[in-house]
Amino acid sequence: MTAAAGLLAAVDGRRLLDRLAALARIGGLPGGGVTRLAYSPEDVRARELVAGWMAEAGLEPSVDPAGNLLGRRPGGGARGLLAIGSHLDSVVEAGPLDGAYGVVAAVEVADALARAGVRLRHDLVVVAFSNEEGARGTPGMVGSQAIAGLLTDHDLAVPDAEGVPLGERIAASGGDPGRIAAAAWREPLAAFLELHIEQGPVLDAAPAVVGVVTGVTGRANVDVHVTGVANHAGTTPMRARRDALVAAAELVLAVQRLGRDGHVRVATAGQISAAPGVWNVVPGAATLTVDIRDADDARVDRAIELLREAAAGVAARTGTHVEVRRGPSVPAVPTDPRLAGAFAAAADALGLPRLDLPSGAGHDAQVMARLGPVGMAFVPSVAGVSHSPRERTRPEHLVAGANVLLNALLTADLDTTLDTPDDPAGDAA
Amino acid sequence: MTAAAGLLAAVDGRRLLDRLAALARIGGLPGGGVTRLAYSPEDVRARELVAGWMAEAGLEPSVDPAGNLLGRRPGGGARGLLAIGSHLDSVVEAGPLDGAYGVVAAVEVADALARAGVRLRHDLVVVAFSNEEGARGTPGMVGSQAIAGLLTDHDLAVPDAEGVPLGERIAASGGDPGRIAAAAWREPLAAFLELHIEQGPVLDAAPAVVGVVTGVTGRANVDVHVTGVANHAGTTPMRARRDALVAAAELVLAVQRLGRDGHVRVATAGQISAAPGVWNVVPGAATLTVDIRDADDARVDRAIELLREAAAGVAARTGTHVEVRRGPSVPAVPTDPRLAGAFAAAADALGLPRLDLPSGAGHDAQVMARLGPVGMAFVPSVAGVSHSPRERTRPEHLVAGANVLLNALLTADLDTTLDTPDDPAGDAA
Repeated sequence: MTAAAGLLAAVDGRRLLDRLAALARIGGLPGGGVTRLAYSPEDVRARELVAGWMAEAGLEPSVDPAGNLLGRRPGGGARGLLAIGSHLDSVVEAGPLDGAYGVVAAVEVADALARAGVRLRHDLVVVAFSNEEGARGTPGMVGSQAIAGLLTDHDLAVPDAEGVPLGERIAASGGDPGRIAAAAWREPLAAFLELHIEQGPVLDAAPAVVGVVTGVTGRANVDVHVTGVANHAGTTPMRARRDALVAAAELVLAVQRLGRDGHVRVATAGQISAAPGVWNVVPGAATLTVDIRDADDARVDRAIELLREAAAGVAARTGTHVEVRRGPSVPAVPTDPRLAGAFAAAADALGLPRLDLPSGAGHDAQVMARLGPVGMAFVPSVAGVSHSPRERTRPEHLVAGANVLLNALLTADLDTTLDTPDDPAGDAA
Repeated sequence: MTAAAGLLAAVDGRRLLDRLAALARIGGLPGGGVTRLAYSPEDVRARELVAGWMAEAGLEPSVDPAGNLLGRRPGGGARGLLAIGSHLDSVVEAGPLDGAYGVVAAVEVADALARAGVRLRHDLVVVAFSNEEGARGTPGMVGSQAIAGLLTDHDLAVPDAEGVPLGERIAASGGDPGRIAAAAWREPLAAFLELHIEQGPVLDAAPAVVGVVTGVTGRANVDVHVTGVANHAGTTPMRARRDALVAAAELVLAVQRLGRDGHVRVATAGQISAAPGVWNVVPGAATLTVDIRDADDARVDRAIELLREAAAGVAARTGTHVEVRRGPSVPAVPTDPRLAGAFAAAADALGLPRLDLPSGAGHDAQVMARLGPVGMAFVPSVAGVSHSPRERTRPEHLVAGANVLLNALLTADLDTTLDTPDDPAGDAA
């Protein structure tokens, strides 16, 4: 088996596109786009549809206790699993490709291998991770966390935005939260490869067809709470005000400067509220939700310090009290250079212009990195639009990406440095 | 009857305070403060309580089709009504004095007149106007508008924030929207006098006990709608963003500068929203609600022009589209110099330090000005706090204010220049 032989086993591009269109109808919206929240009936139907495709591709499908769909194909006995895939769930009013593309492409890759009669050295697992997006205020990447053994009973007990504990959502959609620990993989991971749309404008603008992901950027959430004094908008002189919204507005701009002035790659104030929030009252309180991302965790830490300094200045100037609370953080995760190299070699072999870039979005690959080497590749998002019904990738890029995944998988399969050493104690899994 | 005789007819201060406390329990909140939204069961109970006090004071109480409570006492035949009063409804989480003070004081004034055996030259009407505050997104000053003949069937059909038409609210709380035209006063108005808390810090800071209101400032509401492009907060480079919240934040500060730099007396952004409003999405849309007030309507107009200019600059810088829509405006209304003089003379006679000042808040008096001369007086709000459970006025100032109203009323009653000329066509009302 050689990479050159892999090139012959091209995916069925027409069917890849047809299957994406079929998936997009599950949870499809009248005006275009898709809402397929994790654990919803649409999510379950999408999983069933893909399970059927897996079986056609010679994969043995199963659903684990976390609701992950796994399709397995035995290899030639090399130790360690080769895994490929992404997720089927979406945010509200999403596009048809975020996650779904990586799953459908992975199934087509397995199908192409089967049609070509290629037997990999390693066992192959095609994965559709459950709840990557974090539907209804759940934490997100739930399925991959369960596979990585990170999901606790405490996590399962936390209610979502509708008050339903995560465990109940999993149970209602065909999982088995009481056996969640059994979702953790006990076999070693030789490599996990995830194909995804970029969800940003870099490849489209370059232009390039393949993005070789250097790592998934770290992320910190920060909540900003401003306390001022609510008072009558008509009777309170400007100099007597302690306007919480004025302070919050200054901090929205301070957040923007963190990214614009290069302290971190991106910084966003995505959510704001002012209380009491009526036209004739000077706001007495305001909140901001901030998202800060960089490939260097130390720069994220430093940006939060800068935001605290800005907040102290704003508080002093506006006579308000400003609290900057650091929330959940996700550390930056570099991809494995061997797998990045496999994607780059596949792109080069297929004559596809490529670019190295970090992933600004979080992905299941960053959780799977807890288990072993991970690699990611992107295809372009037209105009960088994602998490929107207008999310789109050119069909030829979707097909090219799947062939890149196929060839990178073949390269990784042949890389004996990725083989996991025998466990001297023996592993029954 | 002379003003000096009026001084003897002092209000019952102890009972004034007790009655304010009794009213504050209707809609009273556990942590202090009051929520007594217009047309709510609490609002109706407050009206019933005050109607009882009116009857005790020798006033004949009735509820008009708009839900206004009127308590009438015949005078000596001089043409034109003398009216005093304010409103009983409150905003959400309000204080106990805004509006309620002016009503209770007016009832006490009528009671003091009755106890002293003073018969005014004019018929006296004590008024508790309905829905001054504009509960649930209704326009506000509904009761006084009905009395001034300004309330139309169209107004009654407009649904509030909960989707209920104003007319249904009025009907459900004891009014008769089908007969709304009958709420309009057909008798001429000799004078309307309103006593109110300042709701601002000027008197408390001066310090002064009586504020003689020179006029009610004009007001314009402005809605600002920003349209940007929603996109992924992790994958969209800063330079590629069209962040609607960044644009809105700049406009919050532009609104503040309108007031701070002296273009108008006060300018406030009280309400903000960003959509989709989630932590990991660059906001694609944002709205602001703006309130601009000045005693000079031309300055309000000019400030809106300045805001439009600022919006155009912000739109160009941020790559967004910004729409500045002028909403309802209320023109500035001067008070009648004779009535301002009556309040000033009363304060001087009682030895109370006084100050001339404009009213930054809107009041029923500005609507009543459509019918005839109006006057207003303020008592201090401690630290200027109002529309808040911490709204407070020193008890001795509350009592002093009621005595100022009593004496100003007596002065106005004796001012024959306020008598309305006989209507040669005859007036059946």
